[in-house]
Amino acid sequence: MTKIQLYDTTLRDGAQGEGVNFSLEDKVLIARRLDEMGFDFIEGGYPLSNPKDTEFFQRLAKEPLKRSRLCAFGMTRRRGVKAADDPGMKALADSQAPVITIVGKTSDFHVAEVLRVSEQENLDMIAETIAHFIGLDRQVIYDAEHFFDGWKRNPEYAAQTIKAAADAGAMLIAMCDTNGGSLPEEVARITKEAAAAVSIPLGIHTHNDAELANANSLASIDAGAVQVQGTINGLGERCGNADLISVAANLMLKKSGYEVLDPKQIERLTELSGFVYEVGNLLRRNNQPFVGPSAFAHKGGMHVHAVNRVAESYEHIPPESVGNRRRVLVSELSGRSNIIATTTKLGLAEDPALMNAVLEEVVRRENEGYQYEAAEASFALLVKRLADQFTPHFELVKYHVATESRGGAALTEATVKLLIHGADGQDQVEHRVAEGDGPVNALDGALRKALSGRFPQLREMSLVDYKVRVINSEAATAASVRVVIESRDADGETWGTVGVHENVIQASWEALVDSIEYKLCKDAAGS
Amino acid sequence: MTKIQLYDTTLRDGAQGEGVNFSLEDKVLIARRLDEMGFDFIEGGYPLSNPKDTEFFQRLAKEPLKRSRLCAFGMTRRRGVKAADDPGMKALADSQAPVITIVGKTSDFHVAEVLRVSEQENLDMIAETIAHFIGLDRQVIYDAEHFFDGWKRNPEYAAQTIKAAADAGAMLIAMCDTNGGSLPEEVARITKEAAAAVSIPLGIHTHNDAELANANSLASIDAGAVQVQGTINGLGERCGNADLISVAANLMLKKSGYEVLDPKQIERLTELSGFVYEVGNLLRRNNQPFVGPSAFAHKGGMHVHAVNRVAESYEHIPPESVGNRRRVLVSELSGRSNIIATTTKLGLAEDPALMNAVLEEVVRRENEGYQYEAAEASFALLVKRLADQFTPHFELVKYHVATESRGGAALTEATVKLLIHGADGQDQVEHRVAEGDGPVNALDGALRKALSGRFPQLREMSLVDYKVRVINSEAATAASVRVVIESRDADGETWGTVGVHENVIQASWEALVDSIEYKLCKDAAGS
Repeated sequence: MTKIQLYDTTLRDGAQGEGVNFSLEDKVLIARRLDEMGFDFIEGGYPLSNPKDTEFFQRLAKEPLKRSRLCAFGMTRRRGVKAADDPGMKALADSQAPVITIVGKTSDFHVAEVLRVSEQENLDMIAETIAHFIGLDRQVIYDAEHFFDGWKRNPEYAAQTIKAAADAGAMLIAMCDTNGGSLPEEVARITKEAAAAVSIPLGIHTHNDAELANANSLASIDAGAVQVQGTINGLGERCGNADLISVAANLMLKKSGYEVLDPKQIERLTELSGFVYEVGNLLRRNNQPFVGPSAFAHKGGMHVHAVNRVAESYEHIPPESVGNRRRVLVSELSGRSNIIATTTKLGLAEDPALMNAVLEEVVRRENEGYQYEAAEASFALLVKRLADQFTPHFELVKYHVATESRGGAALTEATVKLLIHGADGQDQVEHRVAEGDGPVNALDGALRKALSGRFPQLREMSLVDYKVRVINSEAATAASVRVVIESRDADGETWGTVGVHENVIQASWEALVDSIEYKLCKDAAGS
Repeated sequence: MTKIQLYDTTLRDGAQGEGVNFSLEDKVLIARRLDEMGFDFIEGGYPLSNPKDTEFFQRLAKEPLKRSRLCAFGMTRRRGVKAADDPGMKALADSQAPVITIVGKTSDFHVAEVLRVSEQENLDMIAETIAHFIGLDRQVIYDAEHFFDGWKRNPEYAAQTIKAAADAGAMLIAMCDTNGGSLPEEVARITKEAAAAVSIPLGIHTHNDAELANANSLASIDAGAVQVQGTINGLGERCGNADLISVAANLMLKKSGYEVLDPKQIERLTELSGFVYEVGNLLRRNNQPFVGPSAFAHKGGMHVHAVNRVAESYEHIPPESVGNRRRVLVSELSGRSNIIATTTKLGLAEDPALMNAVLEEVVRRENEGYQYEAAEASFALLVKRLADQFTPHFELVKYHVATESRGGAALTEATVKLLIHGADGQDQVEHRVAEGDGPVNALDGALRKALSGRFPQLREMSLVDYKVRVINSEAATAASVRVVIESRDADGETWGTVGVHENVIQASWEALVDSIEYKLCKDAAGS
């Protein structure tokens, strides 16, 4: 077995991604999680570039990582100064990180056109910067920028740059496909040529601009690289870095002869992926390989049928091996197999007339803009209604919600009047008012006030996400909107509900009511 | 040059993706666009599976495609019946599509466990189905399902299935990596072995479950396949199909010796990608290779600096070659280079004090949840304000917006009272009311009524998209929300604005006001 080191740069290269904005706390949380899972190296940031990164290293110096080695990232010294006099070197040394990652130029084109120094000065910058940190008793990883492009232009000079790094004491050369434009066959060939040029280990750092970051990482490892640099969920500038989740899963589950993480930790990859999205408050990529919510979701009727018969027929690995799960989606394309899978879960008998009614209703509602794929609770209620198994716990008489702004402060107030059906057949009217931070929050508050006397268990349920999508985007604010709400109760179960209406308030109301009715049905069935 | 055929299955396999739901009109629009761009084959659907697909083929029979060949998709005949008696075969024949694509089993495991027929019966099903359509004067493409998995298990039987298809008259065998779990080295090796087994051309059909759909397509083509099947934007079940955009761009722009589309059409790939997202009302993947809005967006200060010096330093291809464009993002990480790029565009002189003020304000606002990456108009206003170059055209005195629901109907009314600054120094008060389909629509209506006497040019501007995002998702409806509005005016220019507030109404108001102020500034500068 060959040990392949995982070098995570979510906190540095990942933070360069569009829309990515980690707070200091976010960075610490992610570093602790990666440490706990046994990632070999964690690149924490670029201390010179912003005060947040400087503070991050101070925090970790006080309370160091347990298993992972912490890396601070920086560039080679500036031209014409001594390494010891360069403020960048000082910031790196002050970070107290045990590993310093230094990026330098490989390509004679970049040396001449971007750095604008002589080829010899570039070699000196690399060697002196690395020697400086070796002198300070740090380990040094050398990131060879534009490595493959440089090697293709001028392999002799490119080889000199990494030899300078190796001779100066670097522990490893990371070959960076900085622009993300290399092809796997090039990466494999040049990895072998580089391995012949230096005697220290090689790593691979890829970007996804040609949709080949994962393939290029695997190709380089097959050709001899022993470290892979990347980010969780493939975050990163432009099209992102290699997704360490995909690379690790491929190496451990699909290829043979490689050791990456403890197999128990591979089962936590789905959790890790979700954790980084949540902490960074980022939109999930549903169809992300291995760990996305759609990665083992079956929609085509033919597929659903076969998956029910033999799981591996449409699954390349068992979903559990990466901590994911199989899902069967409800959609007009899916045919009866999907609906049967759902109704069976609800404990209903197979009934062809019900199947037809459900299928017809789903098609009708999908045409209006409903989507049940993320709203399994609303779908369950729809099936129960059509099966005559549903009695609503309450009915709306009216609601009213108003927001007023005057002098910068916005105030929202909602009133809700409900008819609540009692277990004894006695109905009661509740009319309540609540303020809120916005219309949906105020409506939710008034609705709960009206219901919580009769249904105290609603106190243990909360809304965890709220999404609004314009359905016909050409008409914008006058078009239909789809609202999806995710709720969670005390035992950690989450469920999604959906509402569609021209008016976002009414669509939100629909989704709120479904969420509460689902919770009440669920508790009634469980008791 | 080797001609590689593009076989698009966006309308069939792509429609299996979670959240994908094409209407009949959507399907026709997409087919016409692909036809216009010269895709070789367009798979329109699975006529037996749903009435929408049946209708689609009727529409295209009346008004056929001009350049592309239309394909109808179906399975081999059922076991134990004659092809002519099978309703699936009849639906395919009725489609009038010139090409019939038949999917059949390659793997002895699936023959035994899923299909539950003898190995010989499976060969007969393949041969008789294909012969049936050859007899009806159609061309037949044979999709060999689970091809690579089947070949790895039992290469002799797998070879028999494709020989049966070739002998029956199929024009091409498409090797399907149905579960998406194969590795490039396996795909390359098995493609060569399959090419030795049959004398008709081979195609490749991959899925992205191991994040290798693109790499596997390229590996198979390098090994001899001459057709690639995939979808626009990689839509498709689970993790999606191969993205034909990435495959075509790689073959045309990065590899040599292949001919795919007319080079003029490669420049339309970004437009095509956006078109399919818009028509299907799907969320774009911002960091999509080649054509995503982030694909050539630069955020890291070091990168921005270098890109301004030499474009190719951080770009693997010129963005224009696929119809995309370079963007410089505003963010705390980016340093001064990014801000200078934006202020220069606004015609402001380089001023270090202004740079500092902007940087500080951006950092402060990003901490509150603002994101300027999709809100360039709000950022321009922020810079103008800090440069003392901005005088608001109007001020809010108060607004009030209320939604009431009673008996199922939801009514929304908004009032807006503004102080409007006249060009002559005279202020005027306008107090207006409007109804709307929701609170933002009603506020927008009242705001325009109040302003349009003084600023008639606002009539030519409209809102084209409206997005809401909860920023701290744990607190849901009580958390801050970010609203992003996209507006467009008569000459087609679009601009984004952002608002952040605990109250979605107030956040929307902020973004609405920025959008209108931006339009008024822009027109004033242009006049």
